[in-house]
Amino acid sequence: MHSKTPRQPSATELEPVAGNGLLDRRLLLKYGLGFGASGALATLLPAAAAPPARAPWMNEPGDAFSNYGRPSDHEDGVIRWISDNADVAGNGVSWTPLHSLEGTIVPNGLHFERHHNGIPAIDPAAHRLLVHGLVDRELVFDLDRLLRYPMQSRICFIECGGNSNAAWNRTPPQAAVGYFNGLVSNAEWTGIPLRVLLDEAGIKGEAAWLIAEGADAFAMQNSIPLQPALAEGLLALYQNGERLRPENGYPMRLVIPGLEGVRNVKWVRRLMLAAEPVMARNETARYTDLLPSGKARQFAMVMNARALLTFPASGHELPGPGYYQIKGLAWSGRGRISRVEVSADDGASWADAALDEPVLAKAFTRFRLPWRWDGQRVRLKARATDDSGYRQPQRTELIVERGHHAFYHFNGILTFEINPDGTIRHVYDAADDDGAGDGADIDAGWF
Amino acid sequence: MHSKTPRQPSATELEPVAGNGLLDRRLLLKYGLGFGASGALATLLPAAAAPPARAPWMNEPGDAFSNYGRPSDHEDGVIRWISDNADVAGNGVSWTPLHSLEGTIVPNGLHFERHHNGIPAIDPAAHRLLVHGLVDRELVFDLDRLLRYPMQSRICFIECGGNSNAAWNRTPPQAAVGYFNGLVSNAEWTGIPLRVLLDEAGIKGEAAWLIAEGADAFAMQNSIPLQPALAEGLLALYQNGERLRPENGYPMRLVIPGLEGVRNVKWVRRLMLAAEPVMARNETARYTDLLPSGKARQFAMVMNARALLTFPASGHELPGPGYYQIKGLAWSGRGRISRVEVSADDGASWADAALDEPVLAKAFTRFRLPWRWDGQRVRLKARATDDSGYRQPQRTELIVERGHHAFYHFNGILTFEINPDGTIRHVYDAADDDGAGDGADIDAGWF
Repeated sequence: MHSKTPRQPSATELEPVAGNGLLDRRLLLKYGLGFGASGALATLLPAAAAPPARAPWMNEPGDAFSNYGRPSDHEDGVIRWISDNADVAGNGVSWTPLHSLEGTIVPNGLHFERHHNGIPAIDPAAHRLLVHGLVDRELVFDLDRLLRYPMQSRICFIECGGNSNAAWNRTPPQAAVGYFNGLVSNAEWTGIPLRVLLDEAGIKGEAAWLIAEGADAFAMQNSIPLQPALAEGLLALYQNGERLRPENGYPMRLVIPGLEGVRNVKWVRRLMLAAEPVMARNETARYTDLLPSGKARQFAMVMNARALLTFPASGHELPGPGYYQIKGLAWSGRGRISRVEVSADDGASWADAALDEPVLAKAFTRFRLPWRWDGQRVRLKARATDDSGYRQPQRTELIVERGHHAFYHFNGILTFEINPDGTIRHVYDAADDDGAGDGADIDAGWF
Repeated sequence: MHSKTPRQPSATELEPVAGNGLLDRRLLLKYGLGFGASGALATLLPAAAAPPARAPWMNEPGDAFSNYGRPSDHEDGVIRWISDNADVAGNGVSWTPLHSLEGTIVPNGLHFERHHNGIPAIDPAAHRLLVHGLVDRELVFDLDRLLRYPMQSRICFIECGGNSNAAWNRTPPQAAVGYFNGLVSNAEWTGIPLRVLLDEAGIKGEAAWLIAEGADAFAMQNSIPLQPALAEGLLALYQNGERLRPENGYPMRLVIPGLEGVRNVKWVRRLMLAAEPVMARNETARYTDLLPSGKARQFAMVMNARALLTFPASGHELPGPGYYQIKGLAWSGRGRISRVEVSADDGASWADAALDEPVLAKAFTRFRLPWRWDGQRVRLKARATDDSGYRQPQRTELIVERGHHAFYHFNGILTFEINPDGTIRHVYDAADDDGAGDGADIDAGWF
């Protein structure tokens, strides 16, 4: 039962726990942020607006029911930003506006897109899936048969191996945070465990790779190690409750939790078991990093842990000093996020963020931290640690490891600078301004 | 690492664990249902279809990227079914097609609707929220200020108190299962804990109820006990990651996990703390049950546990004997679902269903059970138990408790009869055919 006279947070508890106004993440749990009782919000926020009048929309009956709803027209700025290749039809990406979203589920209309030759208009009744290669018996499935198979649901993220690649550039890219880091989305996928389909075909002893091919005009091919495919892979038929969206593989796609997006082949028509990878263009010439040693970092497909500030960050502007909730998303292809830390003084001090429950393996985790901005220039960062013990690196550390030709798999810590006028810029922080931090400028070569 | 020669399920393990072909829920975990290794699926399912040819949609570039996606045209039958009141504009409901969905998240376009006088076209910049009544200080909020407040995310269901009311009828209603049980949906809501806003206003000692009013033409009013509002209530601004949909309360609504839908006031413009409930029409004349004793069952707003078969169930037809996965959803306003049992012999024997993780309090839980249909007439049921120890009742038990004038809050066990030709009907089972099972026929009086 709620106490009518909530405990007051002590002066100490309302003091910053790290530099430049970061407050204790536990305040919300302990006091409803203590702000009501302490009046802190009133002191930290602008005065209340004018009292309400009976609104015009209350004077007549409202709009009608609909068979399938749409967002409010007032939200028509919340869109995927399209960046496609003028030279190849339907080749490019569209970015999830993570700076405008909350929680962890990305609505299907805003799930990021990566296509190589457009979205095939597949007739689900005519679509077939072939399972062959190193199997005891070839199998061919139509959708009606697959819909009778045992299914499971799994909430997980899918991130393009090329997400955030502009952060390798010499100069920090300036775009809303979702529009250079939003080739990642999180959804509840439902489908058939690949283990069920492959066991039914009978897996030969020498099989080590699963080679998948899509039914798009590019016939996207990719190789997936058998172990993760069997352990957690799904042939997904549903996305956030409804059937897959066309741009997400309708009527069927692979979902291999934790592996880079290109392995999660869409519109899948063929699953071939093999002893070796197929060495397709998108696992050799692409999604491979040339290291300083001259060796190629290939098949590095597990997406490493990262935390991404979604507010305050590029794409926002702060109206003035006072209280804010710092927010972001963290995820790891290795497992659960165990810790997210936030710094408001360019990395000199860090405070632990609160994590919304449930914290799921290989899925978005929403982190939050109360913050009191004094109106001075500050630099915000967030870094993630996962339950494998992996901690997200500095951009500089990444570049030292991957060199100046790195292009994919960027998961370095990002820094957002808030100016006294409330504008926000993406910057490379002090630790990254030492020359070693100069990545090569990249172009759209990854198309 | 996956064994190339998966263990064979024993004959015993492939034997039914309950009447009429219900199989062990653990088969999937232990053997990928064992079907691959045992060839059981091959024996339980129709032969594979013809091998694939290169499909026409692979011969030319596909469709372009989009700023906001839509479902496939092939899925245009997956819609909310609208049942509105011809006499009052915008008064009625639209039903979530639960029989066509999977997993637990309901996409925003298909979240059920219940409006009393249509969907107000609210200008979010002009909308205000007033907090007043038994408070130390009245507060008025505009959206910009609220967007700076501390937020939390919570996955939970919202169920209309009138959901499934046709199941009180003398004769079993015949409609797709979602179209008489789909006034319930499950989403990730993000918003401001009500405790934060009410503590800031200062809760006076005599306050016991929170009275909420919507900014729709009906000015929907309702009373919520202060304790659940403070413990778990949210002023929700986001739904599955994006801002609320207009039909779900844009720009702000209440979400009080576990309480009947009408308490989750949409388009909320006023929160008044009071010592007594407001005794609004929708908590006196409506959403109240007249008991055999002549007393009214009022303010019974916590939605009790239930399990709902979504497949096989009304709205589906089985193509023939063989293997199927029985699927459904379970939820409870009291807490977590602890157990779902399924019967294929009209309640004579029950088997435990598998529950998809994570199992969250006051949220949809997806249950599944493998089943081998022999093609004979069978009656399927599912029943839920929650972690408070509450177990879903027989329809008859409900009617004995609530009498013949019951209209709201139906959570009895439903029975679906599968005929040898694969057609499926909703029936009242033997236990409910004893006369006591005859509820009064209901009309649209709840409008």
